[in-house]
Amino acid sequence: MSAKLILGISGSSRKGANTDFLMAQAMAAAAEIKGIQTELIHLRDYTIAPCNSCFACCNEPAAGGDIPCISFRDGMDEIYPKLKACAGLIIGSPVFFGNLTAQVKAFMDRTEGLLRYGTSSYQYALRGKIGAGIAMGGNRHGGQEFTIQAIHYYYFVHDMMVVGTGPDFTPGCYLGGAGTNYPQRGKVRDAAKVDDLGIKASRMIGRRVAEAVLGQK
Amino acid sequence: MSAKLILGISGSSRKGANTDFLMAQAMAAAAEIKGIQTELIHLRDYTIAPCNSCFACCNEPAAGGDIPCISFRDGMDEIYPKLKACAGLIIGSPVFFGNLTAQVKAFMDRTEGLLRYGTSSYQYALRGKIGAGIAMGGNRHGGQEFTIQAIHYYYFVHDMMVVGTGPDFTPGCYLGGAGTNYPQRGKVRDAAKVDDLGIKASRMIGRRVAEAVLGQK
Amino acid sequence: MSAKLILGISGSSRKGANTDFLMAQAMAAAAEIKGIQTELIHLRDYTIAPCNSCFACCNEPAAGGDIPCISFRDGMDEIYPKLKACAGLIIGSPVFFGNLTAQVKAFMDRTEGLLRYGTSSYQYALRGKIGAGIAMGGNRHGGQEFTIQAIHYYYFVHDMMVVGTGPDFTPGCYLGGAGTNYPQRGKVRDAAKVDDLGIKASRMIGRRVAEAVLGQK
Amino acid sequence: MSAKLILGISGSSRKGANTDFLMAQAMAAAAEIKGIQTELIHLRDYTIAPCNSCFACCNEPAAGGDIPCISFRDGMDEIYPKLKACAGLIIGSPVFFGNLTAQVKAFMDRTEGLLRYGTSSYQYALRGKIGAGIAMGGNRHGGQEFTIQAIHYYYFVHDMMVVGTGPDFTPGCYLGGAGTNYPQRGKVRDAAKVDDLGIKASRMIGRRVAEAVLGQK
Repeated sequence: MSAKLILGISGSSRKGANTDFLMAQAMAAAAEIKGIQTELIHLRDYTIAPCNSCFACCNEPAAGGDIPCISFRDGMDEIYPKLKACAGLIIGSPVFFGNLTAQVKAFMDRTEGLLRYGTSSYQYALRGKIGAGIAMGGNRHGGQEFTIQAIHYYYFVHDMMVVGTGPDFTPGCYLGGAGTNYPQRGKVRDAAKVDDLGIKASRMIGRRVAEAVLGQK
Repeated sequence: MSAKLILGISGSSRKGANTDFLMAQAMAAAAEIKGIQTELIHLRDYTIAPCNSCFACCNEPAAGGDIPCISFRDGMDEIYPKLKACAGLIIGSPVFFGNLTAQVKAFMDRTEGLLRYGTSSYQYALRGKIGAGIAMGGNRHGGQEFTIQAIHYYYFVHDMMVVGTGPDFTPGCYLGGAGTNYPQRGKVRDAAKVDDLGIKASRMIGRRVAEAVLGQK
Repeated sequence: MSAKLILGISGSSRKGANTDFLMAQAMAAAAEIKGIQTELIHLRDYTIAPCNSCFACCNEPAAGGDIPCISFRDGMDEIYPKLKACAGLIIGSPVFFGNLTAQVKAFMDRTEGLLRYGTSSYQYALRGKIGAGIAMGGNRHGGQEFTIQAIHYYYFVHDMMVVGTGPDFTPGCYLGGAGTNYPQRGKVRDAAKVDDLGIKASRMIGRRVAEAVLGQK
Repeated sequence: MSAKLILGISGSSRKGANTDFLMAQAMAAAAEIKGIQTELIHLRDYTIAPCNSCFACCNEPAAGGDIPCISFRDGMDEIYPKLKACAGLIIGSPVFFGNLTAQVKAFMDRTEGLLRYGTSSYQYALRGKIGAGIAMGGNRHGGQEFTIQAIHYYYFVHDMMVVGTGPDFTPGCYLGGAGTNYPQRGKVRDAAKVDDLGIKASRMIGRRVAEAVLGQK
């Protein structure tokens, strides 16, 4: 049997900075589990127009049935097949104003056609899959919880199954991988690299999603 | 193989009123799935002291290892084995001030000894199980979402897997079963009985938990 | 003394549809209060690039001190002075995946330079002002609460004072103006026009912000 | 003019431990502002029965009009007049399962008679007053945000005005005073005493409520 895919989506605008780093930790921990393969993509590498509520994805069959969004043909065309292929999904976002960044939200909003209302072969593409979240915030309690809840909300709309950080002691955050710059010991954009608890929680999330994907507790 | 148990916990103080009714809907929908058995308990039938943060459950082995809380011996002694036995858990709460009632929260707080930090045979008793929530609110958007998120938070701390209302169209609420008195067409305490959307969502939650417990999408 | 300004920001992509309608209700109710003037803008009329985390707004004085963001010169240049001028702010968003739309979030993220960390004359431009939120969702409990909480979070980061729907009976939602398509009685894009409770709550929000701006309870 | 009262309510079961300590910090910072007096009460010193949804407070005039709850005559009888007398309210709760403790929620639920639906002289007793929240959690991101949002929700139902931590740099948490045991440097029950950021944010909350009560930004 081929390995199951866990897709990681990093929403940071800054290459190699904190969110990327925590996402890489989660991916590495997941990849250590036998039977799992991982792929990490970065939203900054794609052009993604925000959904303009045309609802074409829900109201008419997309051309040939193979495109969930016919209104914008952009970087999402490359991401859609990955969403269909994966068995588990981990989204990581920097925290801006206590919530997801606009870029992460634009990606999310463009998956309307993968919902129950979709009219292409992508209908229900994420249904029943395992989801988890990671958030990196400048302040200690700067919105990490709310941002992970926003990721969870997205998963629930897609009828996914949501997992937290798992069974280990003192995960720092039960909802998902939460990192912070505080206490600040290095450069701001490298702060996550010295945030032991953020690293631990991100690795826990990767492992937890991997185990859930494989049907293990 | 014996049927898997889905435990329902209704937090209403009022026998047979709205929350009880929605919980019964969820239980009935779950019981229709082959391989599932259900049990619905009502917190008002038990005396439950609120946790006083003594942390005995985390700091010392409970007597004989078979009691997760040695500080209070009350109705929880009857509920603990049900929590250990179940494969899925659905908690339903009336919405008070946008959140769980104190009675539901008292039940939750008394399960500290079932966590990773527990020292009895109940350690990890809920880990890896399926969880979902139901909330009944007087106002239309009176806290149903926040209350279900509060139930989810509880599940994440226990390292459970959380599901929403499932794949059907227009569930009303994606997070869980959300009922409301508005528009009010009957007596207040019977309002849920004419809330088509609340009934639908509660049934969806029951079925979704049943399917997840059985390893079906 | 000149009238105090309440600024409304409608985040819908669809002109004249539900969110616009509820925002207009809020503005109309506010404008009925003596001493208040209102202005309603629509984000779809502006080009707004998402913040790319360059942090120029926080790290170096913007040219002449009169521009909070020097990295993108776009529609925000017209909106910034309105934010500085207003005494109260009401943001309305359609609900997408239980949360703000990407467009509303892009607007928010671009106000980083108005925070405590700003280096232009816009530093603290929103501080101490009154804020409230409106959310329009397709499902009955489809994220209206979470979306309004997301708006509130934005306000708290700006150190604003946040108000809910006020003292009247059965506001439908205490957090802010919450509208829904359900029960659907008209066309989807006109559904808010027959949503009595959404209209009522949106008007209450307008009046509540007006009163708070004037120092009245 | 007599000094305005800021009432602090500490919800910890443990005398002198972390939540009490952070609440005392908030009270001290508020009391430094001219024109402010403070009172800090501890819920553990009162017997408070949970509301049993009898709705007597909303359905019939309480005896003589001076008692908001006639069903239970207990410690709340002493707290109600303080709620009526205060101009600002700060509630502090330990975080249990990501949320308020049952004891704090029991207090909240018993203030139903102070709402718009109340039938005694306590109707609207909290309306228009300033509110803020403090949360102390064992894990770093263990529910502090959600717990403060739960406190805010309570305030919005009462039609209060809600403030966050104010204008200073790096408050740690924008929503309210958030403390944590991590990184753990002292005894668990004294952890807040070495949590610089939790202390800072709690003091900011005290000052912010004081200023808002006095009509200052």
